[in-house]
Formats: sequence, structure tokens, C-alpha cells
Amino acid sequence: MLKVGIIMGSDSDFPVLKNTVKTLKEFGVEYEISVISAHRSPQKAEEYSKSALSRGIGVLICAAGKAAHLAGVMAANTPLPVIGLPIKSSTMDGLDSLLSTVQMPKGIPVATVAIDGADNAALLAIQMLALSEPTLMQKVIDYKKAMAEAIEEKDAAIKEAAKEL
Amino acid sequence: MLKVGIIMGSDSDFPVLKNTVKTLKEFGVEYEISVISAHRSPQKAEEYSKSALSRGIGVLICAAGKAAHLAGVMAANTPLPVIGLPIKSSTMDGLDSLLSTVQMPKGIPVATVAIDGADNAALLAIQMLALSEPTLMQKVIDYKKAMAEAIEEKDAAIKEAAKEL
Amino acid sequence: MLKVGIIMGSDSDFPVLKNTVKTLKEFGVEYEISVISAHRSPQKAEEYSKSALSRGIGVLICAAGKAAHLAGVMAANTPLPVIGLPIKSSTMDGLDSLLSTVQMPKGIPVATVAIDGADNAALLAIQMLALSEPTLMQKVIDYKKAMAEAIEEKDAAIKEAAKEL
Amino acid sequence: MLKVGIIMGSDSDFPVLKNTVKTLKEFGVEYEISVISAHRSPQKAEEYSKSALSRGIGVLICAAGKAAHLAGVMAANTPLPVIGLPIKSSTMDGLDSLLSTVQMPKGIPVATVAIDGADNAALLAIQMLALSEPTLMQKVIDYKKAMAEAIEEKDAAIKEAAKEL
Amino acid sequence: MLKVGIIMGSDSDFPVLKNTVKTLKEFGVEYEISVISAHRSPQKAEEYSKSALSRGIGVLICAAGKAAHLAGVMAANTPLPVIGLPIKSSTMDGLDSLLSTVQMPKGIPVATVAIDGADNAALLAIQMLALSEPTLMQKVIDYKKAMAEAIEEKDAAIKEAAKEL
Amino acid sequence: MLKVGIIMGSDSDFPVLKNTVKTLKEFGVEYEISVISAHRSPQKAEEYSKSALSRGIGVLICAAGKAAHLAGVMAANTPLPVIGLPIKSSTMDGLDSLLSTVQMPKGIPVATVAIDGADNAALLAIQMLALSEPTLMQKVIDYKKAMAEAIEEKDAAIKEAAKEL
Amino acid sequence: MLKVGIIMGSDSDFPVLKNTVKTLKEFGVEYEISVISAHRSPQKAEEYSKSALSRGIGVLICAAGKAAHLAGVMAANTPLPVIGLPIKSSTMDGLDSLLSTVQMPKGIPVATVAIDGADNAALLAIQMLALSEPTLMQKVIDYKKAMAEAIEEKDAAIKEAAKEL
Amino acid sequence: MLKVGIIMGSDSDFPVLKNTVKTLKEFGVEYEISVISAHRSPQKAEEYSKSALSRGIGVLICAAGKAAHLAGVMAANTPLPVIGLPIKSSTMDGLDSLLSTVQMPKGIPVATVAIDGADNAALLAIQMLALSEPTLMQKVIDYKKAMAEAIEEKDAAIKEAAKEL
Repeated sequence: MLKVGIIMGSDSDFPVLKNTVKTLKEFGVEYEISVISAHRSPQKAEEYSKSALSRGIGVLICAAGKAAHLAGVMAANTPLPVIGLPIKSSTMDGLDSLLSTVQMPKGIPVATVAIDGADNAALLAIQMLALSEPTLMQKVIDYKKAMAEAIEEKDAAIKEAAKEL
Repeated sequence: MLKVGIIMGSDSDFPVLKNTVKTLKEFGVEYEISVISAHRSPQKAEEYSKSALSRGIGVLICAAGKAAHLAGVMAANTPLPVIGLPIKSSTMDGLDSLLSTVQMPKGIPVATVAIDGADNAALLAIQMLALSEPTLMQKVIDYKKAMAEAIEEKDAAIKEAAKEL
Repeated sequence: MLKVGIIMGSDSDFPVLKNTVKTLKEFGVEYEISVISAHRSPQKAEEYSKSALSRGIGVLICAAGKAAHLAGVMAANTPLPVIGLPIKSSTMDGLDSLLSTVQMPKGIPVATVAIDGADNAALLAIQMLALSEPTLMQKVIDYKKAMAEAIEEKDAAIKEAAKEL
Repeated sequence: MLKVGIIMGSDSDFPVLKNTVKTLKEFGVEYEISVISAHRSPQKAEEYSKSALSRGIGVLICAAGKAAHLAGVMAANTPLPVIGLPIKSSTMDGLDSLLSTVQMPKGIPVATVAIDGADNAALLAIQMLALSEPTLMQKVIDYKKAMAEAIEEKDAAIKEAAKEL
Repeated sequence: MLKVGIIMGSDSDFPVLKNTVKTLKEFGVEYEISVISAHRSPQKAEEYSKSALSRGIGVLICAAGKAAHLAGVMAANTPLPVIGLPIKSSTMDGLDSLLSTVQMPKGIPVATVAIDGADNAALLAIQMLALSEPTLMQKVIDYKKAMAEAIEEKDAAIKEAAKEL
Repeated sequence: MLKVGIIMGSDSDFPVLKNTVKTLKEFGVEYEISVISAHRSPQKAEEYSKSALSRGIGVLICAAGKAAHLAGVMAANTPLPVIGLPIKSSTMDGLDSLLSTVQMPKGIPVATVAIDGADNAALLAIQMLALSEPTLMQKVIDYKKAMAEAIEEKDAAIKEAAKEL
Repeated sequence: MLKVGIIMGSDSDFPVLKNTVKTLKEFGVEYEISVISAHRSPQKAEEYSKSALSRGIGVLICAAGKAAHLAGVMAANTPLPVIGLPIKSSTMDGLDSLLSTVQMPKGIPVATVAIDGADNAALLAIQMLALSEPTLMQKVIDYKKAMAEAIEEKDAAIKEAAKEL
Repeated sequence: MLKVGIIMGSDSDFPVLKNTVKTLKEFGVEYEISVISAHRSPQKAEEYSKSALSRGIGVLICAAGKAAHLAGVMAANTPLPVIGLPIKSSTMDGLDSLLSTVQMPKGIPVATVAIDGADNAALLAIQMLALSEPTLMQKVIDYKKAMAEAIEEKDAAIKEAAKEL
């Protein structure tokens, strides 16, 4: 099965990305994790993206904050789908990361998820890989069922809690 | 090969979506196109999304403006990857469509592309399908090469044009 | 008398919604409270909204954050008035929830109140129900009088406090 | 049956409000229309809002642009539900009108619809009145059915149009 | 000499307004302070604004947050200059208060100062009153000189502090 | 009587400022008009602002777009009240001009009016001057009465026009 | 003397960039102009930026719209100062280009000028080069003088035009 | 070698600016540091900027928050390149400082770096000075190499840390 390449622009993004890793593990999807900066280590970014396809990577998840160029830069050098995960930093409430990631020009799409949406970045990668992996697709279906059931439990708990107001 | 399901929330989005269709055709990817409103035709939305997987659809492209719920609502009912295409309408310059599409909660990702980024929605769908279609992946690689070459031509033309300033 | 249906997209919204419950209780208006996610439990959302009218519900209050589709999705399946309560989450300062809730397309209005405006969501529901309940309308009139009187007390207190500056 | 009071802050808002009038007429709901400025004619605003309940008005629709205070000012003087319709003017793309209308403080809700959402303002008023008018509620149900059917027609038309791309 | 009328929409704005009071005291300008809500106590707002001129008030300072209508509503009923002080509340970072205060329509200006700019609201009122009070104008001139001198001291302190880096 | 100094940062702002001039003329208030750029003619800006008080100017109206520093720079060199008029230019919909004008630091207020609010800039200046000119104050009172009466006429016209819908 | 490298991400940016070229010519500064896309021609971008220093380029001006990565990507591969010129495109009013250009992470600055500020991009490059070119610095001084004089002419013209109001 | 003039609009900006000082020291570039307010000490601002060139300063770094006029005002009076460093203050998340700094009109550019981007302001100044100082340019090249190497170390550390998830 194809692997997911998780790349963060700065090691300070790791706390957010832990949920990406956990979700991939939960679904039994292989991954490799790297710190690569589009700006501070452009050579490494180029090598990684150019070799990704041949190294058995299927999807890239690129997480970065502020002027978040990482996903776009990786996408420039690979035919693989690239997921952009905008990270909220200390100013602008994530709007800078979001716009820098999602507003890609014609020709080079980046599949952008919510600001700090680390779980969803993983789920989206899984959904892409599941297109040719029926057992993985079944896991996605099961995951969705489990979510609906978890809502039932929360519903019951809140109904109980509301009685005490 | 899996098909792409193109869905627009309003027939007024069709002029933008023409580029989605054209790009899919250019890559020889099959598609079906529909007008389905998450709000005005919820039943149709549910039926479409629930049956998409079994009907041979691989990826959904959902285009909508304003409070753009279409992509999220379709994603709720299918394990397939869903691409969200925010459409700019008459107020808020597309910010409402973008945020309504991309800021999805944990569990239900939407792969969001740029506001009015109709070509990129198609390309992203193609990249997803190409993961299990080597000839399609090759077409993506060729497309990228052609883009780089087109830049060379434009570069030459601008260098010429600049001489006359 | 018709009931108010309070629905939250996530149990994490409950702390904000407590004020909705309290206000309804204060006015003696019946309610039922539920956790229903437009995305994680779409089936439950559909059932709830389709049956609301026949189950004696008069108004729905739908609270959700981020790409807040809940109010719109519920409104799609019921002829009842739906109040949208945008919840502020960890990024974008509530702007995403607000725009996702209020910018509804033609045909499916959502009566949107302020971000985290839990009391006002209840008051608006009460005002709607009061249209056919004269005693409830009188309570609204009394509530407004009490507010004006409370301002008088606060005015006196601040006038006193200001003397010590 | 209760009437709808349509109020605009400036006669320049009338082109947008025509759709409010037309929708009310379509549903057979009585209305009265007025130009009242919260700032330029405060006396008229006060008189209108204080007498609305006793004059048989059930819901107010207040349309205004820029620092749109009209809905809030009317709501201050009536126990009736007030719908706020933010009008887009020449700067700020409607964001100023929206925030001025929706961000009401505790105690005085304004049921805000989309920027320039004139049809929806009428529909929301109709939904409120329908709570005690079963025939009106039936019309809302029929309206929603008609919308879903219209989508089917548009769907067919677009499917046809797409063939020619 | 004319007095300054300080009005806050909520007693929770008082901590910010303390600096308004202090600055007026520093310049020896008389003031009266009130809690008046445009929405919760409209009668009080009307009475205050209509009587302000005859009661010897020269300038009004109106502080409010969220959908901040207070300054506009007061300005509607008095020919006196009205200063709007937007207060930052728990969402939208003050943008809602600012736009609601400053974007007044033709005919009813509000002299808006910075979000939470309590000192400047007082200074602006003082500058207005100083137009007919030469001794007050001299105090403004002296205040500006003192500010420039304070900068010199801070400059020296920072130059010293920087040596230790 | 004191004069109003109208200053624009660029002659391209003149079309907007015509309404400022017309309003001042309507009230019989003397003015002088100048083009002075805070950035392109800083010397002229300094001379103007430093001499304004002694030259019989009472209030300054400073109009500028983009990074609109003019009002702040003039305010730095005069004890007179300075009105800031943010001009909308080709990008950012006036938000840049507004924030650059209104968000002044402690000590140097700028009385900011709406984006492109040229009439209101004049009216605010008039209100300031009227504090020591009872006949001018009376004109403001009359102006407000005329506005309320004009609303009555517009109300009648719209009521008529609505009949034809 | 060092040359200025003007690079645009798309040939559609050329109309804006003409003013960059004209300003450089006016100051007698040599330049070369290129179309290079960070995303569509990454190889060309890398080659250009890596060789810029050795090819006698002193400053780079990079113009791009939407998710404007060009300036950041060029800056990653050259020690030379890079000027970012955000171009306004069809959505978001230039805010996306601005934030994508200016919000660079620690280590890789981009000297950002105003949205569509093509003249200023050239002037900033000239100011940088003038640090080691006294005759060029003198031209900057003269340019500023000429601007101040032009203001005088415009001031006279507006004073004349205002008489006719 | 030319010096860098670091200027802050308020001594409260010093904590952010420490990184500017440290970076300049690290590269062995001389600097002088000052507190100068465009608004509170305009005379000092004028004197500083007019004399900067003759006092051996090559680049100015101007840090300010809110309506951040400092960089623009300094740029008005010097032919030297001016770097603007927008400081985030208590409201508007730095957007006001950014727009006030970057959106300069034609003729007076300000080289703007990221909000609170203190290190980058220094690096940009160093890059400008390095144009005529080959040893300084070499230091910039070395600094970039060191950054790339630091990424390698962080990459290794994160790869290790991820194993424990």
C-alpha cells in the first residue's frame, strides 16, 4: 500500500500533527514524517517532492503556518495529490496560513483542510488511498458509523446534564 | 475507471464549472454533472451521496457559494473523498464560501481548493484517481511539463514586450 | 404550547448553550435538548428535522462552530423557523461560524443571532412563540422593563464608583 | 392574520426590498412598507416600534446598510420578533451592515438573514407567522417542495448544456 | 464651561472608561458619567440625548461593544458632537464595534476613536471644548510637549537597556 | 468665526471631498482647501499643521487613502481637533484607510468618520464649531429637522411605489 | 552597477509591472524581466534564484497574486534582498496575495510593498542599490523634491477648482 | 560600514525588538536604537530622518503598532530604504499595523516584513547592506546554510519523537 508523507514546515507544528499520526496509525496506514521548510531547506523540499512518487508515497500532508508555502512548493514538484494543513500561529488567527495554502493558482491544486485540522488531513489522505483499497474504504465506512454512534452517547449525556440546569 | 461526480448548488455556478468539465475531458476522465442543493433539494443530496460509491463514482467535486454547505453535506453521507469548490457570489468576495467549505469539524474533511478554482478542482480529482491509474499519473506528469514549457513561451513574449516600454 | 428544540453540533458547545436553557426555563417555555451533528450524524439530523413539526416543536435553535452547517441542514428539512447560533471556536474568532450560518441562499433562511449569543437565541424563540401566546408576549414586555430598570441600578452604581477615581 | 412591517433605513434600499414584498404577496401575507431612519428620523422610529404590536403587526423586517442600527433600534422598543436584513453598500462589501445587525447584546436579539437576502427575510417572517396559521405553514411546505422540483428541472437543463462542452 | 457626558452601554465597559475619566480630571474638565443602553434602556437614551444641549453638556462620549449602536442613537437626538468609543468584546476582536460605530450614514456623524481608545476619547472631547477655551487649548499644547519629553526619557532608558543585550 | 482646513493627501481624492466643501458652504462655514501629502510633502504638512491654530483654523479635515497617515501626522503638530476621512482606493475596500486613520495611539486622537463619508466630515466639523456659535448650532438643529422631514417624503414615495409591485 | 531582476508569476501581471519597468528606466537602473512561476516552473525558479548573485543581479522584485509564493521561494535560494509585490486578483481584494507575501517565517524576509504597488517596488530596489551608488542616491533625493513640488502644483489646481463648487 | 537605525514607536515594543538587535549583533552590523513616536515626538522623528543619511545610517527599521505611521513618516524625510515592522497590539491581531505600514502610496515605499517579524527586519537590513559588503554577503550565505542544517537536526529529532506516538 502507498504511504502518506507527513511534512511540517517547523518542528513547532509537531504538537498539532500528533493527531495526524494517530489517525493514520488507527487506520493502519503507513507514513513517514519529516521536518522540511520550503524556505529554510529548499533543497530538501525539492528532493523529497521529486522522489516521493518513486519512493512509494501516495499522498503528501504539508503543514505550515504564516505565509504557508510548503504545500504549494511540494505540489510543484510532484504529480501526487498534496493536502495542505494550515497551522494557526501567533498573529492573524490562521487566516494567513489558510489563504497562503488554499488560494493556489491554476495548475497546482492543494487539497486544503481546516486550520489546525490535523485529524482531517489524515482522514482525507486515507480516503484518497481507499479508492484502490477496499478494506481501507470499509474502515472509513466503519469510522463514520462509529462517529454517528458516539453522537448518540453524547446526546444522552447532554440530555442528562441539562436536567440539572 | 472511477468517475468524478460534479455537483453544483445552483445552476448559476455552471459558467465557473465549465473549466472543471473541460479539464476532466482533457484528461479523459469520465464524469457526471448534477445540480443538487444541500438546502433546496436535501433528499436528492442524500440519495446522491449515499449511492455514489456503489455507482462507480470515485471523487465528488461540490461547488457552492455563500453559506456553502454542499461539500460538507455530501461528505457526511459518503466515504469517498469530497472536493469543495467555493464560488464567489455578490458579497463578501468569496470569504463566506471559503470558510463554509474549508473549516470542517473533525471527522468529515473537505478537500478545499481556491475560490472559483474550477480547473484545480478537476486536477485534484484526477490526481486522486491517478493513484491507482498509472497512465493517468503519467498524464499529470506530462501536464506539469507542458505548464513549465508554456511558461518559457510566455517568458519570451514578455521579454519582447518589455523592450517596447 | 409549542416546544423549542435546542440542538448543538458538538457536546463541547454545551457550556455556551446553558444560557439558552436557563432563559427558556425563566420564561416557562418547554424545550428538548439534543446533540446532533450535521456531518457526523446526518441520519439523526434528517429524522429530527423532518419530524419536528409533527412532534410539537415550534422553533429550532441550532448551535455550531467552524463550518457551521447545522442550522442550514435542519432548515432544509423543516418548514419551521430555525435560529442559528454561531459558536466561536479556536480559530477565526467566530467569523467562520457566523458566515456559515447567516449567508444562507434564497429559499432557506436561518435567523442568525450574535456569535455565542445563547441568551438571545432563546429570547428570539420566545418572541416567535409569543406571537400566538399573549401571556408569553406579556412576559417579554416585562423582561424588557426589567432590563431597563436594571440599567438604572447599574447607572447608580457606576456613578458612585466613578467618584472614587 | 398579523401583518409584516417592512422598514428600510433609506429609500435607496428599495430595489433590494422589492423581493421581500413580492415573496410576502406570493404567500398572501399582508404587509406595510415604510422608510424610517434610526438616525435621521428617530422619532418616527420610536413611534413605529412602540405601536407595532397594538397595530396588528406580528414581525418587523428592518433593512439597512453601513452602521445598520435600524433593526436593533426597532427591537429596543417592541416585544415583537425583528428580522434584520443587512444591505451591502459601497464599501466593506456588506461586512459592516452584517456585524452591526447581528452582533446584538444580550436581551435584544435581531434575527439576521444574509446580506441582501431580501427573499429570505420575507420567508423567515412567514415561517414565524405560520406557527399559528396552519394554512400558511402548508404554503411553506409546498414552497419547499416546489424548490426541490425546480432543482430537478435545472439539473436536467445543466446535464443537457454540459454535453455541448 | 461645557461638560462632557460619558455614557457606556454596559457597566462592564467601566474598566476601559476609567482612563477617560482620569484624562478629563487631569485637564480639569467637568463630566457626568452614565450607564445607558441604546437597546435595553431606549427611553433613557432618548431623554439623555434630547436634553444634553440644554443641560450644559458640550460633547458626548459613547462607549459600546459588539453591535455598538449607542453613539449613533445618541447622535440622532442631539446637535452636539458625539464621540464613539468602540469597546472590544469577546469575539471579532473589536471589528464589530468599530464598524458599527464609525460607518454612520450621511447626516449623523460619529467621531470615532480607536478600539478601547479611552484616553483619546477624552482628549478629543477636550480639543473640541478648547476651541472656545484658550486656557484649555494651552493645556493641550502643554500635554503634547510633555508627551514629547516623555519620549526622550524612554529613549534614554531603552538605549541603556539595549546595551545589555 | 474659526475656519475649517480641508486637506487631501492626493488630488484624486477631490471628487469625494466636493461634498465636504458643499456642506460647509451650505452652513456658511469658511474653509480653505489644500493638497498636502504626509509622505510626498512632509515639510508642507508640518508648516500647515504648526501654523493652523494661529491662522484662525478651528478644525482640520484630513482625507487620505491606503496607508492613510495624513490625519495622524497633522494631529501630531496641532492642538486642534483633527477629523480623519478614510478614502476607499483600489484595493482592500477602504479597510486599510479606516484602520490607518482610526487606530491612533494614546495621546493623539483622530476623529474618524465613515469611509468616503465626506458630508459627515463637514457636519462633524460644524458641530465642533457650533459649540461656541449658537447660530451655527441652530442650523444643525434645523438640518436635523429637515432630514426627518425628507424621510417623510421618501416614505410616502416608497409607499406609492410599492403599490405597483 | 547591479541589475534588478523583475520576475512575475504570470504574464497576466505584466500590465501592473509596466510601472516597475518605467520607474527603473527613469532612474537609469538596469533590469531583466522574466516570467517564472514558483509552482508551474519550479526548476526555472530555482535556477534563476541560485544564479542571481553571480549574474550581477542585486535585488529581485517578485510579483504574484493569490497564494503568492514566488517571492518567498526565490528568497529561499538567494542571499540577495527580495522585494515582494502582491498582485490583486479576482477574489479576496489582494488580502491573500499580501498575507502570502509578507508573513514570511523567521530567516527568510521578503520586503513587501503595497498591493499592486509597482512603482514602489522599483523605488525600493533603487533605494537599496543607491546605498553604494551616490549618484543614484542623489537621484532619489531629487525624485523626492520633485514629488513635493508636484504637490504644490496640484494644490494650486485644486484651490482653483474648489472655487467653482 | 553603514549603520542600521532601529526606531520603535513606543518603549513597549522593545521586547519584540530585542531579536532585531540580537540578529544585527550576530552579523556584526552596527546599529543605534531609539524611541521616536511619529505622533508624540514629530520633531524628533523629523530630525532623525533628515539627518540619517549624513550620520552614516544605511537602513532604518521602524517598528510600530496600531495605526503604525512611523515607517511612512520616516521614509518621507530620507532617501534611505526604510523597513517597516508591524507590531501586534491588543486589538485587530496586527492587521491594523500591517495595513498601516505596507499600503504606502506611490513614491514612498516601506519594505514591510511580517507582523512581529523582528529577526527578519534585521536580516533584510543586513541583506541590503551586504550588496556592497562581500564579507557580509558571505555571512548571509552561511546563515542560510546553517538554517538548512538546523532543519536536518530537527527532522531527525521529530522522526525520533514520532516513534513514541
